Amino acid sequence: MITKDTLSKAFDKNLERYLAEWKEYLAFQSVSTDPQFEGGCKACAKWLVEKLSKLGFKAELIPTSGKDMVYAERSGDKSKPVVLFYGHYDVQPVDPIELWKSDPFTPELRDGRMYARGAEDNKGQNFYVLKALETLIEQGQLKNTVKILLEGEEECGSKGIAGALPKIKEKIAADILLVCDSGTLNLDLPSITMGLRGLIFLEVALHGAFKDLHSGTHGGLAPNPLAVIAKMITSLHTPDGRIAVPGYYDQLLAPDQEDLKLALTMPFTDEWYVSQTGVLPVAGEQGKSWAERNGFDPTIEVNGIYGGYSGAGVKTIIPSVAYAKITSRIGAGQDPKRCLDLIVKHLEKSVPKSCRMEVTNSSADARALRVSAAAPEIKHATAILSQLGNNCGAVGYIWMGASFPIAADLAEVSGGTPVMVGFGLEEDNIHAPNESFSIEQLKMGYIFAGLYFSNL
Amino acid sequence: MITKDTLSKAFDKNLERYLAEWKEYLAFQSVSTDPQFEGGCKACAKWLVEKLSKLGFKAELIPTSGKDMVYAERSGDKSKPVVLFYGHYDVQPVDPIELWKSDPFTPELRDGRMYARGAEDNKGQNFYVLKALETLIEQGQLKNTVKILLEGEEECGSKGIAGALPKIKEKIAADILLVCDSGTLNLDLPSITMGLRGLIFLEVALHGAFKDLHSGTHGGLAPNPLAVIAKMITSLHTPDGRIAVPGYYDQLLAPDQEDLKLALTMPFTDEWYVSQTGVLPVAGEQGKSWAERNGFDPTIEVNGIYGGYSGAGVKTIIPSVAYAKITSRIGAGQDPKRCLDLIVKHLEKSVPKSCRMEVTNSSADARALRVSAAAPEIKHATAILSQLGNNCGAVGYIWMGASFPIAADLAEVSGGTPVMVGFGLEEDNIHAPNESFSIEQLKMGYIFAGLYFSNL
Repeated sequence: MITKDTLSKAFDKNLERYLAEWKEYLAFQSVSTDPQFEGGCKACAKWLVEKLSKLGFKAELIPTSGKDMVYAERSGDKSKPVVLFYGHYDVQPVDPIELWKSDPFTPELRDGRMYARGAEDNKGQNFYVLKALETLIEQGQLKNTVKILLEGEEECGSKGIAGALPKIKEKIAADILLVCDSGTLNLDLPSITMGLRGLIFLEVALHGAFKDLHSGTHGGLAPNPLAVIAKMITSLHTPDGRIAVPGYYDQLLAPDQEDLKLALTMPFTDEWYVSQTGVLPVAGEQGKSWAERNGFDPTIEVNGIYGGYSGAGVKTIIPSVAYAKITSRIGAGQDPKRCLDLIVKHLEKSVPKSCRMEVTNSSADARALRVSAAAPEIKHATAILSQLGNNCGAVGYIWMGASFPIAADLAEVSGGTPVMVGFGLEEDNIHAPNESFSIEQLKMGYIFAGLYFSNL
Repeated sequence: MITKDTLSKAFDKNLERYLAEWKEYLAFQSVSTDPQFEGGCKACAKWLVEKLSKLGFKAELIPTSGKDMVYAERSGDKSKPVVLFYGHYDVQPVDPIELWKSDPFTPELRDGRMYARGAEDNKGQNFYVLKALETLIEQGQLKNTVKILLEGEEECGSKGIAGALPKIKEKIAADILLVCDSGTLNLDLPSITMGLRGLIFLEVALHGAFKDLHSGTHGGLAPNPLAVIAKMITSLHTPDGRIAVPGYYDQLLAPDQEDLKLALTMPFTDEWYVSQTGVLPVAGEQGKSWAERNGFDPTIEVNGIYGGYSGAGVKTIIPSVAYAKITSRIGAGQDPKRCLDLIVKHLEKSVPKSCRMEVTNSSADARALRVSAAAPEIKHATAILSQLGNNCGAVGYIWMGASFPIAADLAEVSGGTPVMVGFGLEEDNIHAPNESFSIEQLKMGYIFAGLYFSNL
C-alpha cells in the first residue's frame, strides 16, 4: 500500500515530465462538436492508445456511430474489485476566441495554473488518474483489474458511446465506476458527487384557429392558444410548488435520511444564493429543505414559451398557435419514459374543445443516478478524501440537481457502483475562455487516485 | 320631407357626376401613416374644404398635433336636433401593391364596383353622406344644423383629433353623432352598430435571476419567471372563463335584456363560426350567450408571451426574464384606467419573493360605447333602415366586440347619441389589396343619409 507522502514526493519528482506530457495532451484540438476538428480528435485518441499501451494496458480504439472511444484494460487479482474508469478526451469549442489570453491549444503555465481548452474538463482530470496509475504500476502497487473508457463525444451528447454500450456490456463489467469529471466547493472540502438527476424534454404546440384572429371581433368566442399554454404550464405545479402531475412521484426513491443530513452539511445560505443569482431559493416544494428540492426531488421547468406577437407595441390578436419547451429533472427511481407520458397526459387535460395539442419534439433517455453514503464504495472514497483537505478531515457530499446521462447509463450497464470525485473549481472556467487547472488541483487528484487504487 | 323614390331618382340622374367626383376624391394619396404622403393628405383636406364651402357650409381646416381636420358647419332650425357627422379622409397604405389589379389611386369602375384605396373605408362611406346632404340642400330639405368633422389620422391612431377635442368641445356640441364607418352582414339586413368595446393594453416583464440559470443546478431553488408569467396569465380567468380580477365587473353596465334579445337575432351558429375560424366559439364566460360574451362582456387576452429559449431543440435554462403582452376589451361603463390598475394589482399577487414585475408599456384611453335600441335616435335610424333592405323591413343590431376609441370620445365630448350605420361588406376588402365599394352600396348609403337627415 502506497502512502500520501510517497505519492506527493513522486508527483514532485516527476512534475516536469508530467507538465510536458499534459501539454502534449492539451495541444490536441479535440473539439467534438465541430467537424473541422475531426483530425484533432483522431490524433488525440491515437495518442492515448499509445500512452496506455506503454503503461502496460491492452489498449484499443472502439468505433462508434461518431468518434472512436479509447478503451484500455489491465488485469489484476481476480479476488479484488474491478474498477471501470470513465472520462472523455473531447473538449468544448473555444469561442469567443478573442477573450483568451493565450492560445487555447498552446497550453501555457502561469502562476501555477495551466491555461488551455480542456485543462480541467476533462483532460486535466483524467490525466491525473493516468499518472497515478503509472506511478502505482511502476511501484508494483496496482493490484486490481482496471478498465479505462475515454469517450470522444461527451461535449456533444455522448450519442456514440450510448449506442455502443450494449455491445461492450461484458467488456466493461465492473464493481466500481470511477468518474473524475466533477468539482468541489473548495480544496479544503474535497467532495463526492453522490447524485445526478435525470432529464426529459418535450416541446408542445397548441393549435387554435387556423389564423391569428382580431382580439376584438373574436374575443369572448375564440379560445386563445397562448392562454391555454399558460394554463398547461401552471397546471404542472400545485400552489405550494409540488409537481401536480398525477403519479409523478410514484417511483421516486425517498432520500435516505442520513444522506439528507449529510447533504445539508454543505455550506448554503439564502444570502450566498442571492449573491450568486439575484434571487432567493424559493422554488420547489414548500416545507422541504433546499438540498431535497435541488438534489433529490424532481422538477419541471418551462424553458421557453413563444407565440403571438413579440415586437414593439401592441398587436390585438388571438394567436393561432402557441409553443412551450418543457424539461423535467427526475429523481432516482423515476422512469424517464413514464414521466414523459404522465406529463403529456396531464397537459392534454387543459386543451379546450376544438384546440389541438401536438408534441413536436421530445426525449426521455436520461435517468437519475444516486448513491448513498452508506455504500462501502463511498465509505472507501470518504476515507481517502478525508486525508486530502486542510479542514480536519471534512468531506463534502453533493447530490447535484444537474444531469450526466452517460454516467447513469454506464453505472447501469457496467454494474459498477458510481464513485464520482473531482477537483474542479468555479475559477477553472470550464466551457469558457481561459479554462485552467492548477498544479495544486492536479496533485490533489493524483494523490486521491493513487491512494484510491492502491487501497481497494 | 323627401322620399326614398325621390332620392333614388336624384342619385340615378346625378350618377355620372357623382362617379367623377368620387374618383377625384379617391385619387388623393392620403395615406396617413407614411410621411411621404403628407402632400396627398393636405391636398385631400383642401379639396374637401372647397367642396363643403361650395355646398354652403362654413368650412375650415383645424390643425392638430398631426394632420389637419376638416370641419364644416351649416346652421339650421334651432329647435331641431344638431347632428355631428364624423368620418375620415385618410386611408390605409397600399402594400402589397403587386396584388392590386389596378392602381390604388387611379380609381377604376369594374362590374359596378369602384376599385381604389379608400373606395369604402372611409371615403366611399362619407362621400355618400356628402352627396345626400347636397341633394337635400338643393331641394330645400336640410332643416337641421349639421356639423361635419373629417379627420386625417383614423388609420394611424387618431392622436391629433384626440388631443384637439377639449379645444373644440363647444364647436362640436351635438344631439346626435352620426358615424358611417361600419358594415353590415349583407345588404338585405341593413344594420346599426350598437356598441363597441373599449381597449386597454399592458406589457409586463417579470424579472428573476440576473442571468439565465442552468435548470439542473438551480431547479428546485430559483423561481422561473416564465412559469410566473404563465401563472399570472392563468390567474386572470376562473376555470369557467369569467375574468377573475377582483372588482373588474363592478362598473360594467348590464345589457338591457331587450337589446340582448335583438343581438341574438343576428345569424350566428357554431358551424358558421368553425367555417370562419377553425375553432368552436368556446371562450368567454360559460353559460352566457355568444352575443353577451362577444359584444357586452369584457375580455382579457394575452397577445404574446416570450422569454427563455425559442430556437431549435432543447436549452436547459431557467430564464432570467419573461414578458407578456395583454389587452382587455372592456364593456360599457368600465373606466379604462381603473381596469388597468385592477389588472396590474391582480398580476402582482403572483410575483414570488425576490422576483420583480415591471409594467413596461401600457395604455388605457379607449372606453366602450353602447346604445340601446330603446333610444329615440336608434328608433329613428331603424325606421329609415327598415325601408332599405329586401328582407321585409328587418334591421340588424350589432353590438361589436371590436373598438373604435375616437367614436367613444366624440360621443362623450360632443354629447351626441351615437348612431353608427354603414354599408360595408366583407367583400369590400378594406385594409387589403383591391379595396372596392359598389354603386349599389353607395346608393343605399345615399338614400339612408338623405332620409335620415330630412326626417329629423
